[in-house]
Amino acid sequence: MRQVLREITLKTSGAGLYEFSREAHAFVASAEMETGLFTAFCRHTSASLVIQENADPDVQRDLAAFFRRLVPDGDPLFVHTMEGPDDMPAHVKSALTQSSLVVPIAQGSLVLGTWQGLYLFEHRHAPHARKIVLHVMGA
Amino acid sequence: MRQVLREITLKTSGAGLYEFSREAHAFVASAEMETGLFTAFCRHTSASLVIQENADPDVQRDLAAFFRRLVPDGDPLFVHTMEGPDDMPAHVKSALTQSSLVVPIAQGSLVLGTWQGLYLFEHRHAPHARKIVLHVMGA
Amino acid sequence: MRQVLREITLKTSGAGLYEFSREAHAFVASAEMETGLFTAFCRHTSASLVIQENADPDVQRDLAAFFRRLVPDGDPLFVHTMEGPDDMPAHVKSALTQSSLVVPIAQGSLVLGTWQGLYLFEHRHAPHARKIVLHVMGA
Repeated sequence: MRQVLREITLKTSGAGLYEFSREAHAFVASAEMETGLFTAFCRHTSASLVIQENADPDVQRDLAAFFRRLVPDGDPLFVHTMEGPDDMPAHVKSALTQSSLVVPIAQGSLVLGTWQGLYLFEHRHAPHARKIVLHVMGA
Repeated sequence: MRQVLREITLKTSGAGLYEFSREAHAFVASAEMETGLFTAFCRHTSASLVIQENADPDVQRDLAAFFRRLVPDGDPLFVHTMEGPDDMPAHVKSALTQSSLVVPIAQGSLVLGTWQGLYLFEHRHAPHARKIVLHVMGA
Repeated sequence: MRQVLREITLKTSGAGLYEFSREAHAFVASAEMETGLFTAFCRHTSASLVIQENADPDVQRDLAAFFRRLVPDGDPLFVHTMEGPDDMPAHVKSALTQSSLVVPIAQGSLVLGTWQGLYLFEHRHAPHARKIVLHVMGA
């Protein structure tokens, strides 16, 4: 049993989904494990991770639109407003999705379904550099 | 440290929760590990996984009812409608719940609380065969 | 590769977020692993886990306020009401957040971002003792 760890940075330019399946697949391939467990962890609380369909880009747009309507910017419910009208909604959207994604590895590859992609879900409007830690453990 | 991997298929007949605790417990028992980490991973983006109370079936019904109201079929917000009025809501409900469940193993069993059950959360109305990968790692 | 497992109990006095980052960091430090995978698992279905900003307490208050508005106590939608008006909403809030948190370990520490804290999210009003299982696997 071995482990490999890597941090990647994704640059974002506004709220929405940013796919990092390619980086994840390359990382897993380079680890050369037959069987194992893959984890991606987002080191932020105003961005998060989701697994979503990567066939039709409209899915990603609709997903972001739903969250924008569910947790609107500038909601008067929020007291924490110092960092901008999109900051507290970003924390809520992060809580509603994931900080980490965990995917088993079989026959050397992530066991993702045909249409599953890994996404960073950016919740802030300003450009950000988001750090994601990738980890595998296996043999 | 060893690993065991298995894929199971659950047949669904409409939206709602389908328990697979029995399959998970049997899988963990057959792996014969004293301590370890169990992962269940759903290979779909229109169905997901949740841990919920398995004592009163009304809990599972109410949970599905809440998600149906929160993310209604045919919501005019959605552009991705080609695959039916329940497809994009299914993706949203998946993002709001989990693609994977991770549960430690102690003394040979999942450390689930007394009332915790593992569920596939089917979000589509049409019957589906859903693939879930079960993985354990431990000793 | 080694594993360490511990169960901790957090006492809650009403709905809201209760940080257990200190307990998690101490547990990881005592395991003395350079690289690994940390899991925290909540053994309840009316309380859950989230990673959130731990700088401004208003963030935790706003987060709880959002979930209270999204899933109100005594919602007439719910049939499962025997255990009180805050029980079924507690199950829904748990499904919307996490049963487990998974965080890689690098250089002996959790790779949490600067402002990330680990929280138990209590959804019931009455005081409870909540059991969380901590697990690490690594070397």
